[in-house]
Amino acid sequence: MVAAQHEKSSRDRVLAAARDLFNSHGFHQTSMAELASAAQVSVGQIYRLFKGKEDIIEAIVHADADQWAEDVDILRKRLDSGELSIDDTFEQLMLHVIDEKDEALSFDILAESFRNPTVGEMIGTMCGRFRDDIRDFACAANPELSGEALDGAEEMILACMFGLGHRSLSRPNLSPEASARRAAQMIVAGLKAVR
Amino acid sequence: MVAAQHEKSSRDRVLAAARDLFNSHGFHQTSMAELASAAQVSVGQIYRLFKGKEDIIEAIVHADADQWAEDVDILRKRLDSGELSIDDTFEQLMLHVIDEKDEALSFDILAESFRNPTVGEMIGTMCGRFRDDIRDFACAANPELSGEALDGAEEMILACMFGLGHRSLSRPNLSPEASARRAAQMIVAGLKAVR
Repeated sequence: MVAAQHEKSSRDRVLAAARDLFNSHGFHQTSMAELASAAQVSVGQIYRLFKGKEDIIEAIVHADADQWAEDVDILRKRLDSGELSIDDTFEQLMLHVIDEKDEALSFDILAESFRNPTVGEMIGTMCGRFRDDIRDFACAANPELSGEALDGAEEMILACMFGLGHRSLSRPNLSPEASARRAAQMIVAGLKAVR
Repeated sequence: MVAAQHEKSSRDRVLAAARDLFNSHGFHQTSMAELASAAQVSVGQIYRLFKGKEDIIEAIVHADADQWAEDVDILRKRLDSGELSIDDTFEQLMLHVIDEKDEALSFDILAESFRNPTVGEMIGTMCGRFRDDIRDFACAANPELSGEALDGAEEMILACMFGLGHRSLSRPNLSPEASARRAAQMIVAGLKAVR
């Protein structure tokens, strides 16, 4: 029990240090020795916990995907119960992705996805989850959406979320809150207008 | 004259090889020796043409920004002359960014932008151009847009373009043409509805 707890805490420390170092120096530019030193574990211990750097990336992507699923589940319940309007729901969705942390790390992982099929597969699967959730919310805004119109809405909303989540390099003028509110308004208006 | 032409052709070969190698192997994982070999020039010659890899990235970003400016200028003239409706114009804009080539390279450059202020500055300036063009087209769709509504529209359209331009990892179902058409419809409907 104590050993298992110790292992979990080492694992968490390695993941936290990996997020930090991969983000600030880059995935390829971070060595296992640097990671071990930052996480206060030995290199051997990292290799007992993870097969390699790719496996660490996988754990980071899974943690982010699980967090997303949990947050969307809460949103869905608040929409279903009538606590949130569909405009509010999209606003919360946008706010969730906007000004994402660790953007540099995110770009490193995305670049790696093209060169490493395992990472690419992970990202594809995660986007599949996003797509399913987006479709549900799009249909809540306009229950008559179907076929290409629904596919197009899914595509456009996913794109918008991705862009808002990676906007800091583009030097935005608007606050996260105002950007999320405005994007949600346009998306809901767009969803209601298309057929 | 012949020497200047020769230099231009070496420069173009280095840039083409850099796009290719940075995209397939990564910016940091490509050495100057590999680049020289692929471009059929000497390492010394690359250093006569460029200060270093960062300078090559700068040339690639500038070439892309110039291409964008040229294409937007054509679109604007076609809209102004009445040849294209505002829906068509947004469709063409979306089609221009969709399924962008060299996505892995693009993510490498974006990751580098966070770690290298010169690259970050370049990307910020390029986005500034995009933002100005997007505002013009948003106002063409709805001349009454102003203030936060216009800022929000600019933000949302830029995000959508960025997402569509980097969508391939998300395994899209729709063709580029259908995605561009559908995204443009939703954007124009959104622009007309907000105030």
